[in-house]
Amino acid sequence: MTAVKHMKWWGWGNEGVGFHHEDKPGFAPFVLQAVGLDLLTATRAGEPSFADLKVGKSKATAAFVKQLAAIVGAEHVSTDDMLRVIHTYGKSLRDLVRIRGNQIQRSPDVVVYPADEAQVQAIVDAAVAADAVIIPFGGGSNIGGSLEPHRGEKRVVISLDLGRLREVVAIDAESGLARIQAGAQGPDLEAQLNAKGWTIGHFPDSFTHSTVGGWVATRSSGMQSDKYGDIADICRGLRMVRPGGTLVLRPLPSTSSGPSVREMILGSEGRLGVITEVTVQVHRVPEKRNIYAYFFPNWAAGIEAMREISESDATPSITRISDARETGFTLATSKERHGFSKFTAETVLPALMKRKGWNLDDICISFIGYEGGTAHAKRQKKLTDAIVKKHGGMGVGEGPGILYDQKKFDTPYLRDFLLDMGAAGDVSETAAPWSRLIDVHKNVYAAAQKAYDEIGVKGWIMSHLSHSYHSGACLYFTFAFVFKNDPLGEYNIVKNAIQQAFVDTDATISHHHGVGREHSPWLAEDISPEGVAVMQALFDGADPGSNFNPGKIIDAGY
Amino acid sequence: MTAVKHMKWWGWGNEGVGFHHEDKPGFAPFVLQAVGLDLLTATRAGEPSFADLKVGKSKATAAFVKQLAAIVGAEHVSTDDMLRVIHTYGKSLRDLVRIRGNQIQRSPDVVVYPADEAQVQAIVDAAVAADAVIIPFGGGSNIGGSLEPHRGEKRVVISLDLGRLREVVAIDAESGLARIQAGAQGPDLEAQLNAKGWTIGHFPDSFTHSTVGGWVATRSSGMQSDKYGDIADICRGLRMVRPGGTLVLRPLPSTSSGPSVREMILGSEGRLGVITEVTVQVHRVPEKRNIYAYFFPNWAAGIEAMREISESDATPSITRISDARETGFTLATSKERHGFSKFTAETVLPALMKRKGWNLDDICISFIGYEGGTAHAKRQKKLTDAIVKKHGGMGVGEGPGILYDQKKFDTPYLRDFLLDMGAAGDVSETAAPWSRLIDVHKNVYAAAQKAYDEIGVKGWIMSHLSHSYHSGACLYFTFAFVFKNDPLGEYNIVKNAIQQAFVDTDATISHHHGVGREHSPWLAEDISPEGVAVMQALFDGADPGSNFNPGKIIDAGY
Repeated sequence: MTAVKHMKWWGWGNEGVGFHHEDKPGFAPFVLQAVGLDLLTATRAGEPSFADLKVGKSKATAAFVKQLAAIVGAEHVSTDDMLRVIHTYGKSLRDLVRIRGNQIQRSPDVVVYPADEAQVQAIVDAAVAADAVIIPFGGGSNIGGSLEPHRGEKRVVISLDLGRLREVVAIDAESGLARIQAGAQGPDLEAQLNAKGWTIGHFPDSFTHSTVGGWVATRSSGMQSDKYGDIADICRGLRMVRPGGTLVLRPLPSTSSGPSVREMILGSEGRLGVITEVTVQVHRVPEKRNIYAYFFPNWAAGIEAMREISESDATPSITRISDARETGFTLATSKERHGFSKFTAETVLPALMKRKGWNLDDICISFIGYEGGTAHAKRQKKLTDAIVKKHGGMGVGEGPGILYDQKKFDTPYLRDFLLDMGAAGDVSETAAPWSRLIDVHKNVYAAAQKAYDEIGVKGWIMSHLSHSYHSGACLYFTFAFVFKNDPLGEYNIVKNAIQQAFVDTDATISHHHGVGREHSPWLAEDISPEGVAVMQALFDGADPGSNFNPGKIIDAGY
Repeated sequence: MTAVKHMKWWGWGNEGVGFHHEDKPGFAPFVLQAVGLDLLTATRAGEPSFADLKVGKSKATAAFVKQLAAIVGAEHVSTDDMLRVIHTYGKSLRDLVRIRGNQIQRSPDVVVYPADEAQVQAIVDAAVAADAVIIPFGGGSNIGGSLEPHRGEKRVVISLDLGRLREVVAIDAESGLARIQAGAQGPDLEAQLNAKGWTIGHFPDSFTHSTVGGWVATRSSGMQSDKYGDIADICRGLRMVRPGGTLVLRPLPSTSSGPSVREMILGSEGRLGVITEVTVQVHRVPEKRNIYAYFFPNWAAGIEAMREISESDATPSITRISDARETGFTLATSKERHGFSKFTAETVLPALMKRKGWNLDDICISFIGYEGGTAHAKRQKKLTDAIVKKHGGMGVGEGPGILYDQKKFDTPYLRDFLLDMGAAGDVSETAAPWSRLIDVHKNVYAAAQKAYDEIGVKGWIMSHLSHSYHSGACLYFTFAFVFKNDPLGEYNIVKNAIQQAFVDTDATISHHHGVGREHSPWLAEDISPEGVAVMQALFDGADPGSNFNPGKIIDAGY
């Protein structure tokens, strides 16, 4: 049995770890008010039973499994039901609802764990020769529906798990470049880099369970992207196994060698081949890394401040502001404070805000990060503080920023907790030009409310801005409601309404979660029908047999 | 007759403008020493005679011309020989040698000047229906061989000139985005932007005669790319006419909507359709914009300083350093100095350098630019100066920097002057990781020398580094020699040797000139055969009839 460790088959993260709110006294009242769910009386569902799960029989013949075993060794290929289930879905809300609801339409037939690129090449060649389907699998954290086999797939489906390829192969210290195997998860690679004084600077929410190959395959973005760039910037070279040979893009700072093949592979979600290695930019661990918290009197003032920061000479590493609702949520879900900290948060600050004439229901919390040399970080803060002040905001120091940093990666556990209680909690994110952000926010809220009304539930939605660029930013929405009768149907009503509001307001279908099957229906509205035609031409030409993760991103004709 | 103005049919730039060296006393001795050409005794060829030029008969039928005239108006379609010749080539050295040598293999059959996107759509649809070939034409400044019709092309070839689409359509001031028609040349669009306080910050050497559509089609980069990015960063959205419909990419700061169609169009050199509009990032004209000059004791010290600047907290707008040979050229081709300036340049500086123990044959001149608010520009300079000093360099003030800025766009005229004298002068540029730059430089010099030896001429080569990135930079080579017997054959020997040295030393075939036909032979060595296969799949699928600029970037199978 292979030594690759997986997340829970039915939810996020490691076995035995989960969300709890015993130390967050404001949480239960908040949930009651937001979605009408009383955590104190609600019954919590237990862990689903694997024994009850209906899993289809593997279509892989013994001969084919033997062929794969000859490549990777018998212990690294499996048709075991548990492994097949683990490789059926990612961790989207739809995935979790289906796995909890015993709805597995189509599992992979066989899971294979190659040790190196040569084995990946052999698997790919064998698979294509046998007209099998290959779905690359990294950490399994995907929330776009990129991992599930097509429900009508009649061919053998291989889940190709990169979990054994997790080394930082080499660091070019002069160029700030690191060659990393595609299956390395965030903590794997960051630890190997940190040991030599480097950081990748890429910290998506999924960091603890996602891989560098997965980041590239879905165009990921991390919370310090303002400084380090999105993965599309960070990825300078890569290797991808294709039928009969490996595509090699040597690391380059920039090039004008035609349409960017690198950018065709970024975001390709397994449709062009299997990424085995990525060369990324790495940076010396900075001398200073501070995250400061600020408050703004309202959303519009905060957005305008973020815009002005992006246009200024200041270069913070993080610019993030929560709207009034998310600010309320953040304050409610904080751990209980004591002593001076409690006095400051609950007495001094509100009094100060009231004296400024702020409406406490409108206030927005913001986190801004500064990295680099001590003098540089200090200067960035000074430049930024002046802009914050101009827009009526005020700094409240580093304490809450540190808190933000620490709890960052725990959020996905909350979703499982809510599902245990019969409620949906999920996210949709987008990006748009600065001039459209206020409208995107307004229209998404209206669309979500309309969806809740249609279902007949009390729903919740909140948002923050993060990832600032010269011409715009990402808006990240979190929504929640208690299921009424039909979890998937009701979820779709809300999720679809939000996605439609994105494309109707000049915003994209996703800033950093990819397309998969979840966002595919809006692709033509995002990049125009001719844009889809060009992308389809690429997929059809590069994978004429539809062997590589077919039906993802574009479902047409499959 | 259409009102679109073109460059000289036989050379660079405007009629009546050319390079002269009367005010540069060091130029003639320099040329004599470098390539053995005595400008004082050499005979200068006159302007070639158009009447002598052999131009093939247009294959366009009267009916087809009439059909195009019905779309754009009779005065905007032409089969005139002069216009067909102007649209046959770009301005590469091979183009200039061939046009001077009366070697026109295949001219476009008809030149058409649409007024707007609807007319472009009608032309494209008519062309594809008639199985004609469409070659989009911007300013005609291309030096990659991207504009010439394939010599064996049997179908009617249309040169689709975007010269009438040159407006800045709209500016979104809040987002820093400007919609610009594809045919707008640098000075057109910059003037329109400047009038409203904006700049695009994109200043390639070809600026005065190239278009925003051309920049996108070839992945251009301008001299301030360290601050403003390459055109791939600057271009946020675009419109491209394809058969039956227009591909529309709305401006977005970032997106994860699958493989980037925007990045497929960037660098596509007309192979996917006709770009009609580009939405670019624009910036407020900065308060300060300074270019300072520095000297380094040698090339290695200068490169290391540039690398350290790129890794530091400093964010200059330009980082450029010439090697010792290019430094010699720069000093030799300066205008004659007088008075105090002469005394400083010719007496004080050399004395100072000698006192530092520098070998005057090794010194390298560097230009570093600072932009932004006054305090910001000052601080960038301070951070940079410290790094320069650490690597033994010294600043010599702003004067030479201003000079650099002013003469920047005049360089291409020098090439025509040398051709008049029977000599080649041309450029090849690349990009590589920092750790490979010294080797790239060394290997290119060795390869060029070997090529000169093979031909049996005294050749010249010089280089500078520009466009710094986190992980590497661009190296730009300029080479010259006097033709012996066979200009094109001898040029190819040198050019090919340089390009081969690039790919053999982990460098790319071009940083910002594109591929066209000139660099196509090395594409597989640059992006691997599988990379070419994926790109070919895109071209084949998106243009099954090979109607769009066929044979460019990848020539295979055409």
